[in-house]
Amino acid sequence: MAQRLVVIGGDAAGMSAASNARRRDGDLDIVALERGTRTSYAACGIPYLVAGDIAVADDLVARTPQEFRDRLRIDVRTSHEVVGIDLDAGHVEVRDLARDRTIEIGFDQLLIATGALPIRPNLPGIDLPFVSGVQTLDDGEAMLAAARAASGGCHQVAVVGGGYIGLEMAEAFVRWGAEVTLVEGAGQVMSTLDPDIAAPVEAALRRFGVTVRTGERVQGFEPGRVLTDQGSLPADLVVLGLGVRPNSDLAAAAGVALGARGAIAVDRRQRTDRDGVWAAGDCAESYHLVTGRQIHVALGTVANKQGRVAGINIGGGYARFPGVVGSAITKICQTEVARTGVTEREARAAGFEPVVATVTTTVRAGYFPDAGTALVKLLAERGSGRLLGGQIVGDQGAAKRIDTIATAVTARFTAADVVDLDLSYAPPFSGVWDLVQVAARRLAGAVAEAG
Amino acid sequence: MAQRLVVIGGDAAGMSAASNARRRDGDLDIVALERGTRTSYAACGIPYLVAGDIAVADDLVARTPQEFRDRLRIDVRTSHEVVGIDLDAGHVEVRDLARDRTIEIGFDQLLIATGALPIRPNLPGIDLPFVSGVQTLDDGEAMLAAARAASGGCHQVAVVGGGYIGLEMAEAFVRWGAEVTLVEGAGQVMSTLDPDIAAPVEAALRRFGVTVRTGERVQGFEPGRVLTDQGSLPADLVVLGLGVRPNSDLAAAAGVALGARGAIAVDRRQRTDRDGVWAAGDCAESYHLVTGRQIHVALGTVANKQGRVAGINIGGGYARFPGVVGSAITKICQTEVARTGVTEREARAAGFEPVVATVTTTVRAGYFPDAGTALVKLLAERGSGRLLGGQIVGDQGAAKRIDTIATAVTARFTAADVVDLDLSYAPPFSGVWDLVQVAARRLAGAVAEAG
Repeated sequence: MAQRLVVIGGDAAGMSAASNARRRDGDLDIVALERGTRTSYAACGIPYLVAGDIAVADDLVARTPQEFRDRLRIDVRTSHEVVGIDLDAGHVEVRDLARDRTIEIGFDQLLIATGALPIRPNLPGIDLPFVSGVQTLDDGEAMLAAARAASGGCHQVAVVGGGYIGLEMAEAFVRWGAEVTLVEGAGQVMSTLDPDIAAPVEAALRRFGVTVRTGERVQGFEPGRVLTDQGSLPADLVVLGLGVRPNSDLAAAAGVALGARGAIAVDRRQRTDRDGVWAAGDCAESYHLVTGRQIHVALGTVANKQGRVAGINIGGGYARFPGVVGSAITKICQTEVARTGVTEREARAAGFEPVVATVTTTVRAGYFPDAGTALVKLLAERGSGRLLGGQIVGDQGAAKRIDTIATAVTARFTAADVVDLDLSYAPPFSGVWDLVQVAARRLAGAVAEAG
Repeated sequence: MAQRLVVIGGDAAGMSAASNARRRDGDLDIVALERGTRTSYAACGIPYLVAGDIAVADDLVARTPQEFRDRLRIDVRTSHEVVGIDLDAGHVEVRDLARDRTIEIGFDQLLIATGALPIRPNLPGIDLPFVSGVQTLDDGEAMLAAARAASGGCHQVAVVGGGYIGLEMAEAFVRWGAEVTLVEGAGQVMSTLDPDIAAPVEAALRRFGVTVRTGERVQGFEPGRVLTDQGSLPADLVVLGLGVRPNSDLAAAAGVALGARGAIAVDRRQRTDRDGVWAAGDCAESYHLVTGRQIHVALGTVANKQGRVAGINIGGGYARFPGVVGSAITKICQTEVARTGVTEREARAAGFEPVVATVTTTVRAGYFPDAGTALVKLLAERGSGRLLGGQIVGDQGAAKRIDTIATAVTARFTAADVVDLDLSYAPPFSGVWDLVQVAARRLAGAVAEAG
């Protein structure tokens, strides 16, 4: 009899694993259980759906359940929520939401890809209907409807949390004509950036018309109002952008070990501590190639890679997910921002003494029209000169160059190695020294001086 | 008495070396001899000057002779042409063009940075005034005047040679309203690209209105006509874009050894075979990190890096120029194109058996407005899977990603390593798998299949 793989969660990690397992093992019986109605959708696209850039929610669906069934013989069951895992018996307990019944499905191998859950702090009034998270496409469609309504009048939107999603949502609502206030408890927006890089992002937000209130903590909600430690503000709609936590409760209840920040502990092949049980994506931990520590990263890129690795291994192949370097990018209004490796704060926390270089330079050749400017910050380890990370904030064309830095960090290059890189050059694209190398030259000098 | 460094050539390599030497050795007597009237100008900007993107030629000057004198105490002498080098006597013979006299200048160290010369084949009529090369800013200004004239009527321009400069000049003249014909002896434009990557570039040129005649050899010129092996074509102006050769005659006459393609032979510190004599930039050879061979590259990026390395060494420091991977980029009309490492042809010529993967994918997330498309070709060595090179042609945002590939090639990454890279992702920038990784996944599969 064919072996059966049960996949819990029909998004990036789960369906990537199922697809890769299928390609390597044509006989495997693959059942994918998804509590929602869609598979493989791009949650990262939701802010652009809300902004109106993307016409309909289904554009964000990379592949439908029917496509998985037809092309890859994956038995995708939507509206099926796994409510329990019995590892000893080798089955999952599943609520069939449409038929309102509970069934058991046996497995030989199990992949847990339950994703992450938006953080909803236990504040008074958080369950009021005007307080909304951003996770599913249904959330996105509801927000889009709210945004369209806002475009008619002068709606007031409060975004709570100044991370990537919060900022993207703030921009989306401003574009619909809403009055948007961003409330962030920390002293800066984008706490994943060093303060000197976050500052121009915050300035761009303000220029775009967002009221930014940092260092102000939300303490609760009343109908039409957000209550903070410094007073309150009116809001017709509250958007929560407080980050996510791994959705690992089901795994933990089944006795699967958890690791960093409550994410499911996995090795480089995406194996959990239990035989035949795998985990991938936003519910699982990752290894950070710079700090050498296990961390939790909830990003589509990582989910796809981990899912692919899990699927190859489940299908009888061999693959390892070496780890992440913490790359991220976004665009706030016309300002691009990206990071990779560790920030100055993260470097110190991980035990490095960082040497830092920050330069302001042009994106394209200085004499070129619309050359654009960028602030580029690079960090190296004192002594060795090993590149530890970088951050870029600037005009169009600046931020994606973070990939050069990410690749150099992965290669364990020094600052001097980056100066020597043979990067491409033509005036419409960069200066004769690419912005990454302008910063690297400064950094190599600083490393030499620091001794 | 202070040691004297004489620099022959006041462009990127020469002035970068002089500046770096000065920063390390405040006592050094530095004399820089330039036969033209300008220092440190961006020759790569000339096509954009001709296109009208850049207002005046002097915008392309990074630093004037006076700035070098004032800020770095470099004795820059323009309109001074070195006509002889006497290594035994330790002096150069210099024509002072303004005063029409010849002087001798002694040196302790000599840097030869004489650049490259445009190739002008010995064809009948090549010295007719309507046949023009593109090297100096004066050439550029003359072309701009011609282009402006063309905008009035229906001038016919023939561009001979389908390399980077030829294509950029063709575009510039079309933008001024000229009728442009590009004549290229080879079977494709851009012979530095594989034919399958050059084809969409050629298509873009044609769409833009350039008449492209490949496989047609120019045999001579008559006033108002270009003669080819297949007939002739009318032309009010002929632009030569046939590439360059190292300007190494002066060095050779002095007894300095030449290397690849007649470029001055140098080691990784930019030393020639003669004590105290250095060479850098378009007149010197480079080491190719993939093929392991000495080559000649005439690019501003390499000139700046070699000049920097020479200057550090001359100033008493220690630096090596590790080599190039053959990166290049340009934009033809709205089509971006870039390459790095080796092409399929170059890989075979260097003794590799390449495994190739070519994909068409989107530049940004597929569901994003104006996602753009790109054709991405990657090569790996059969067996080892070592990444050998890549080529990208596509819409806005596609080509600069070549830098990720260039960095990975430099790091000697395999195709599988590239799949694992933690590259940045957000829908306005890329798909969840960056276009480089979409190709790398295909390539890693092809490497495994090839065995």
